[in-house]
Amino acid sequence: MGIESLNTPAALIDVGRMRRNIDRMQSQLDRLGVRFRPHVKTTKCRNVVDAQIAAGAQGITVSTLKEAEQFFDAGIRDIVYAVGMAPSKLGQALALRRKGCDLKIVADSLLAANAIATFGREHGERFEVWIEVDVDGHRSGIQVEDDVLIDVARALVEGGMMLGGVLAHAGSSYEYDTREALVKIAEQERSLTVRAAERLRAAGFACPVVSIGSTPTALSAEHLEGVTEVRAGVYVLFDLVMRNVGVCEISDIALSVLTTVIGHQEEKGWAIIDAGWMAMSRDRGTQRQARDFGYGQVCAADGTVLGDYIVSGANQEHGIVSRLNSTDTNIADTFPVGTLLRIVPNHACATGAQHPEYHAVGDDGSVETWPRFYGW
Amino acid sequence: MGIESLNTPAALIDVGRMRRNIDRMQSQLDRLGVRFRPHVKTTKCRNVVDAQIAAGAQGITVSTLKEAEQFFDAGIRDIVYAVGMAPSKLGQALALRRKGCDLKIVADSLLAANAIATFGREHGERFEVWIEVDVDGHRSGIQVEDDVLIDVARALVEGGMMLGGVLAHAGSSYEYDTREALVKIAEQERSLTVRAAERLRAAGFACPVVSIGSTPTALSAEHLEGVTEVRAGVYVLFDLVMRNVGVCEISDIALSVLTTVIGHQEEKGWAIIDAGWMAMSRDRGTQRQARDFGYGQVCAADGTVLGDYIVSGANQEHGIVSRLNSTDTNIADTFPVGTLLRIVPNHACATGAQHPEYHAVGDDGSVETWPRFYGW
Repeated sequence: MGIESLNTPAALIDVGRMRRNIDRMQSQLDRLGVRFRPHVKTTKCRNVVDAQIAAGAQGITVSTLKEAEQFFDAGIRDIVYAVGMAPSKLGQALALRRKGCDLKIVADSLLAANAIATFGREHGERFEVWIEVDVDGHRSGIQVEDDVLIDVARALVEGGMMLGGVLAHAGSSYEYDTREALVKIAEQERSLTVRAAERLRAAGFACPVVSIGSTPTALSAEHLEGVTEVRAGVYVLFDLVMRNVGVCEISDIALSVLTTVIGHQEEKGWAIIDAGWMAMSRDRGTQRQARDFGYGQVCAADGTVLGDYIVSGANQEHGIVSRLNSTDTNIADTFPVGTLLRIVPNHACATGAQHPEYHAVGDDGSVETWPRFYGW
Repeated sequence: MGIESLNTPAALIDVGRMRRNIDRMQSQLDRLGVRFRPHVKTTKCRNVVDAQIAAGAQGITVSTLKEAEQFFDAGIRDIVYAVGMAPSKLGQALALRRKGCDLKIVADSLLAANAIATFGREHGERFEVWIEVDVDGHRSGIQVEDDVLIDVARALVEGGMMLGGVLAHAGSSYEYDTREALVKIAEQERSLTVRAAERLRAAGFACPVVSIGSTPTALSAEHLEGVTEVRAGVYVLFDLVMRNVGVCEISDIALSVLTTVIGHQEEKGWAIIDAGWMAMSRDRGTQRQARDFGYGQVCAADGTVLGDYIVSGANQEHGIVSRLNSTDTNIADTFPVGTLLRIVPNHACATGAQHPEYHAVGDDGSVETWPRFYGW
């Protein structure tokens, strides 16, 4: 049974491309001498994560406690929940640790550190906590030179918790598109996080883990001195945003949405497809980049990129395929009703989340169903 | 058990507001003397649809055959699948009809009409087909004055199918924001669709149903002469896009995302919340409207709108709350870690789709879980 037997729209993973992406990242980090802890928020899929671990990954990163619960149930113990800990979620984290999960949690304020320590003491649990530092101003984390860094460490250790290390994420790396800029932001992420660890050690705290990462910086770093592990997620599938950043080609992108042509507006040069924003997601991540792919790049059913045809518009269950720059008034002949197309998405994490399962397509064209989960 | 016992992020429906929205639309269409067939793609939730039917709705509209299957299993027979029929999906439609579902399907080309008729004859099934007409150039449908309209009707009827009627959707109504423009587009939707029905009747075809609708046009129409039914979906919850269009107030919006404050960047005036784009969706529908709400309007846990605080940025599981126009450098005092907030979304259909269930909040503060489904 090949892809032609699937109901459309359907999320496809090209397994050959996925394996090459996994090998590329693992080789890069092996070469740089650091452990790799993939972020599973991209796929939320056990089959994908099993392949990452088989290739050498050590432990995983999660963005929700539901991900931690699901992957712990699937047999993975070493998990970092890489979002600042809300005090109201400590009960859920405790339950995971009590079941044997080696769950690490994150604090980036004195208030959170104190809440964790108080809760931990009340429940007789010595939480392992990593301190988040801010390396590029793009989201959360303590400033590396701020004295709060030391105060948080003290609150944790004196409060009876274990200070596991420091963690950072250079999310601003998505905004660059030259090798030079990526090397620079990668080095900034590395050097500032290592500096935070050194400050903690100088203040008398053990800081065994120095954890950094994003797909663009992980693939651009020239050395990772002082770093113990790297986290990255989207590299496993890649997407058009990453293509525009310059860390992959369209032909590396392992995720696509299979869709059927259902109609036309010939004088406008439109083919209407059954993949709207519900199937592609509303992510327009390439809108502000050098090349705007609309809601995705159109490819033939076999994956061949079809020049400058993109999904230029989307309603909930309708997409509009058109050609950039010159209207294709023969579009009903180019893509007759019933034609199967693959649409390569802007953002793999967002598009995957719209689908209850992936259909994993092997090099021989065979198709397997890989479930994924969602929610919190 | 109130909302404070929920894990965040969580999708809340204010049941009182939802019931008022349902009553408002039903009264409007009762007054205009037409049947109402709500579009269930907004919520994909049986509890909501039960309330719509209890208030007087007759039948439902769906955007996927999965919605048709799920709601037929829940006891609803009268269903329109309002997306151009892909020939490859005819088997799924046939299976529904064979089980007793009064499923109507849609064609907007000769090719689709012929495919339906051929498949129908082969399987001894007389499909009821509605012809989609284009009333505003925004997506699909046959031009009202095009001879193809008559050709499609002939292909269906001579092919042994039943021509049920004509259907249109003035999706461009979302682009307006004055009463005058909305009244005008509503009248355009009505008059063009009625004209299509008249052309079919003049050519000798019965055309019993004249079906139109969108939330803005349904609420703005001054009369609906010649129309037999109206479809609309988002009105049941409303959202910020509809507020900008001018058909509701923020205080009418029944959907919000409950979130917890997890950190701050005080000098930037940022509170970090655990509702990122995964919880809000990537929909930035207010971006091109007169008032841009970012990823949503911030409200207190009790629903009180909090002036000009919006979710100004979002990562997958992190949102950034900030104040428009003037930085709140006391934001850690305004919204301490642990504070519960409700975020009112841009687009109810997109935000709901990110959540496995709604938490329905009654006027007395009680909370009930209402499941919803997703996928195809």
